[in-house]
Amino acid sequence: MEAKINELKRLWAEAADLRSVGAVLDWDQSTYMPAGGAPARARHIALLGRLAQEKATDVRIGHLLDELQAYAESLPYEHPDAALVRVGRRMYERDLKVPPAFIGDMFQLGAESFNAWAKARPENDFKSLRPYLEKILDTSRRLANFFPGYEHIADPLIDTSDFGMKATTLRSLFAQLRRELLPLVKAISAHPPADNSCLYRHFDQKGQLEIGAELSRQMGYDFQRGRMDLTHHPFTTRFSDGDIRITTRVNEHDLADCLYSCLHEAGHAMYELGIRPELNATALGHGTSAGVHESQSRLWENLVGRSRDFWVYAYPRMQATFPGVLDDISLETFYRAVNKVQRSLIRVDADEVTYNLHVMIRFELELMLLEGNLQVRDLPEVWHAHYQADLGVRAPDDRDGVMQDVHWFAGQIGGMFQGYTLGNILSAQFYQAARQAHPESPEEMRSGKFDTLHGWLIENLYQYGSMFTTDEVVQRATGGPLSIEPYMAYLKGKYGELYDLG
Amino acid sequence: MEAKINELKRLWAEAADLRSVGAVLDWDQSTYMPAGGAPARARHIALLGRLAQEKATDVRIGHLLDELQAYAESLPYEHPDAALVRVGRRMYERDLKVPPAFIGDMFQLGAESFNAWAKARPENDFKSLRPYLEKILDTSRRLANFFPGYEHIADPLIDTSDFGMKATTLRSLFAQLRRELLPLVKAISAHPPADNSCLYRHFDQKGQLEIGAELSRQMGYDFQRGRMDLTHHPFTTRFSDGDIRITTRVNEHDLADCLYSCLHEAGHAMYELGIRPELNATALGHGTSAGVHESQSRLWENLVGRSRDFWVYAYPRMQATFPGVLDDISLETFYRAVNKVQRSLIRVDADEVTYNLHVMIRFELELMLLEGNLQVRDLPEVWHAHYQADLGVRAPDDRDGVMQDVHWFAGQIGGMFQGYTLGNILSAQFYQAARQAHPESPEEMRSGKFDTLHGWLIENLYQYGSMFTTDEVVQRATGGPLSIEPYMAYLKGKYGELYDLG
Repeated sequence: MEAKINELKRLWAEAADLRSVGAVLDWDQSTYMPAGGAPARARHIALLGRLAQEKATDVRIGHLLDELQAYAESLPYEHPDAALVRVGRRMYERDLKVPPAFIGDMFQLGAESFNAWAKARPENDFKSLRPYLEKILDTSRRLANFFPGYEHIADPLIDTSDFGMKATTLRSLFAQLRRELLPLVKAISAHPPADNSCLYRHFDQKGQLEIGAELSRQMGYDFQRGRMDLTHHPFTTRFSDGDIRITTRVNEHDLADCLYSCLHEAGHAMYELGIRPELNATALGHGTSAGVHESQSRLWENLVGRSRDFWVYAYPRMQATFPGVLDDISLETFYRAVNKVQRSLIRVDADEVTYNLHVMIRFELELMLLEGNLQVRDLPEVWHAHYQADLGVRAPDDRDGVMQDVHWFAGQIGGMFQGYTLGNILSAQFYQAARQAHPESPEEMRSGKFDTLHGWLIENLYQYGSMFTTDEVVQRATGGPLSIEPYMAYLKGKYGELYDLG
Repeated sequence: MEAKINELKRLWAEAADLRSVGAVLDWDQSTYMPAGGAPARARHIALLGRLAQEKATDVRIGHLLDELQAYAESLPYEHPDAALVRVGRRMYERDLKVPPAFIGDMFQLGAESFNAWAKARPENDFKSLRPYLEKILDTSRRLANFFPGYEHIADPLIDTSDFGMKATTLRSLFAQLRRELLPLVKAISAHPPADNSCLYRHFDQKGQLEIGAELSRQMGYDFQRGRMDLTHHPFTTRFSDGDIRITTRVNEHDLADCLYSCLHEAGHAMYELGIRPELNATALGHGTSAGVHESQSRLWENLVGRSRDFWVYAYPRMQATFPGVLDDISLETFYRAVNKVQRSLIRVDADEVTYNLHVMIRFELELMLLEGNLQVRDLPEVWHAHYQADLGVRAPDDRDGVMQDVHWFAGQIGGMFQGYTLGNILSAQFYQAARQAHPESPEEMRSGKFDTLHGWLIENLYQYGSMFTTDEVVQRATGGPLSIEPYMAYLKGKYGELYDLG
């Protein structure tokens, strides 16, 4: 059986490695590639996508999975070989449904559209993107239709990033969360807003990158196995177990933008870095779902990085990085500034309380587009209308409206956003469990010690990669199913104190 | 026939694109990759190399070449389709001889060895590199032996980079050049050396990168289709017709290192940028040989970039870039400084007159290693002995001895160095022809105008990519065969005046 397992791993490694190489091309496209490189790059990304899909659907993989089925079932559920065959079969059968040429075309369209977006967004030119988005919507529908028998057309797309989730379940989960969030937002809005003007002073790029890197490193991001570069829309990418990179961006008049993008992406990267090395380039060598991945970026960004304990350690570091700039700002003022609740325009800059309202708009618009209940040409206005209704604000343009997030423009509509809210919910569940196991960890953070928390997360979550599904990993790590209670308790506790809601 | 030509191009584009993707992996490995990325990167580079070789040897390519042979022969020699079939067949038949798995293993070894070199060189640790170099020598011999019937074991390796050249021809050409160079070096050495101490003042990295980029841009390197990054050993790399990148390095106490590496690599890049776009991703979409390629890096670096006319334009720019640092240095002093002739240790820093002596040592050592007349374990000492004999200097360590160039450590011994001297010889031939066609071009450079020269080179050389062999391109552009006369005339004229040799 060992020989068969090794052969399965060898075949899979080629597909996984080609996808990793595609990730290098994507990363370069988003960071350093000169404008002239775009056309050929799209073709290269398409070629790699197609070849990887061919390798991933090699009939020999199917035969090996069949031959290994009985062996895998004889093993404990937690055994890596059992997971390899169990999860590998799921992925193989999913990949089998999608022709390699379709993947190639879809990746090419995504790369072309990404480059068009990077140019059109600063120019506030949605019109030039509309043809791309229409093609992407059509492509996303065709992708879903490779998986007939769905209840909602978005389900196959959601299932790919958050296995086991469906549009109806999510609609009802989000509605429940919304019912809890809206009164909290309303209660906070009745109080005087925090003063966060100190975040909009001038902070030079060099210092912002330094402190972003320093705090990420301190939390546990390993720069020997990663690096940080500038991009339009920050992301984390994995090339191998030894090379997991983060990206950020800098606005010299907005301290929070770079800072929290660093902590957020470092969280994603720490998840990937914590996966057992032997799972690399197998079907298990990535975080298990968009939601669980996001739970880790949000845990480090928010539950750690917006906590008072964290800033007891980090604020003197921050002040030292920008000599003189924050001398008149107390720790408490700074802490309140980074936790200001305010209905706003930009998802990635949103506070913890209103953030999910941004996500829900996108999730709903994705569903409507896929259902055919919304046309791409109407999207910019419908976007504004939703923001007006849910957040009481309207962007002055499409740049900070429908064009603010790269996701749809990078090649897919559907399944792109539910993970953000699932991640918020899960972040509080995991954090609660970690704190129960290690009540000393918040106190430790006050002196810059994060390894107790980090170690618990590696032990209970990171190391497993995709061995367990979201449901399984939540059950194993927290002892219960997914629930919004810890998340709402966290928000109510923290913001009740901050805004004196009594 | 058009359909067949298009099908041939389509098949070739996949091989060429996979090689371009491999080049992206190499570039990233040499510029930004964190240390932890090395093991997987070597595997990825190997995978891409193997897949590209599989695609390049697709039997359908052979059939199409056969079917197109009569059509190609019916066309004028200069017709792109004629060249496609003519040159394509040569490359196809060469590729057919080398198994894809061998290429994969060779690339993996090269990537592993490169990373070992990048670590070992600063530590002056040749010992740790010896096992790599022994494997590389063995691999290079095996590579040569896929081409039986050679006269010298280096011939197949030389032929791959400089088609048509052989070890014996080159040995005799280099001996002839050496006979001419040695008296010139001796005559110059009898005169007081130029004072180049002004180049060793402190020049900050930012300024060095700025002026390197500015002068490269002014010469004609297009940053919309390229970029410049830092690395250990500067190189140029092509990802597509719209993305041809250069790299450099900076020593804040050596102005010439970064400056001339920029002009040198910009020359390579301008050649690639000048190739007709329709040749991209075909068998013709690269410079035609190592020698012709080097002729262009050396033309821009030396015949332009070390000329008095160039510095009339560039020196005020240089002074402005480093305020105050060069105020006391006249144009003439600076010009003489960048043309100081001196027997020295480092090839890439060598002056124009002694440079070829460095190359000849490497060329001879490559041949001896391949012949079995030199063992890797003896290489460091034999290196020192050759430097002592030919240049009268001995490096204090192996770091600036046998480890100074990356070439062998990147995966191949044989065929790596002859192009440097061929390039010097050819640079003078091409430059002489360009000046005969445009006697006004040196005068134009004094005001920063390089496009007459650049245009002539595009017209007569660059645009053709690999359509013509080295011999053909020299004949077409200069009206005669390869000859050392223009090169020696250039050196004697320039250095005769500089050193008052009378």
